[in-house]
Amino acid sequence: MQALGFHYLIELHGCAREKLLDAPFLENLFQKAVKESGATEVGRVFHNFSPEGVSGVILISESHFSIHTWPEHHYAAVDLFTCSTTVDIQLIYKHLIQALEAKTHSIIEIKRGQKIPSEK
Amino acid sequence: MQALGFHYLIELHGCAREKLLDAPFLENLFQKAVKESGATEVGRVFHNFSPEGVSGVILISESHFSIHTWPEHHYAAVDLFTCSTTVDIQLIYKHLIQALEAKTHSIIEIKRGQKIPSEK
Repeated sequence: MQALGFHYLIELHGCAREKLLDAPFLENLFQKAVKESGATEVGRVFHNFSPEGVSGVILISESHFSIHTWPEHHYAAVDLFTCSTTVDIQLIYKHLIQALEAKTHSIIEIKRGQKIPSEK
Repeated sequence: MQALGFHYLIELHGCAREKLLDAPFLENLFQKAVKESGATEVGRVFHNFSPEGVSGVILISESHFSIHTWPEHHYAAVDLFTCSTTVDIQLIYKHLIQALEAKTHSIIEIKRGQKIPSEK
């Protein structure tokens, strides 16, 4: 069975703290990422936490892009979940690293919607 | 370094097709899951696709709960992402399986916000 979705979990450490505090900046960054990926937005919600930190999700026709930031740890957790195989994930990944000035980072791909052979 | 977040990727196969088509039902199901988990909602967006399928995210103070459905494959991809260690994920998992009548299912936990030792 082919995968129905491709879920990329991105870890961004050592980011610029001021970027992780800035909800409008992050919303704009993600809006660009969606556009760049060729995806279609169907809704979004961003939230600025007190005392600090931002969470945001853009729902797309192809699934979702999300970010959660921990400014005090200079860390952001990003998910890019898409059912499309045409999205250039590496390009978006590179842009996010640059925009947030991440010093260390990782990305893993998890295939979603595949039956696990051992399951009955 | 302790994990900052706990991300549960839930695969639900063999679900009842009519449940996966029903955005209000799924939104209500997720609202209950958030309440049950003791999390605090800060926003949500749900979308019904044409010809079929639902995507929805509830943004919570502790991160997010999301669902994407593929009714034609009787499949739903659920994410429960939380920075809280007090959420009873197994209880929510069990309720989702029951509510969607999933015949096969799996859950994996991915720790977010841990530095990878091999990274500089």
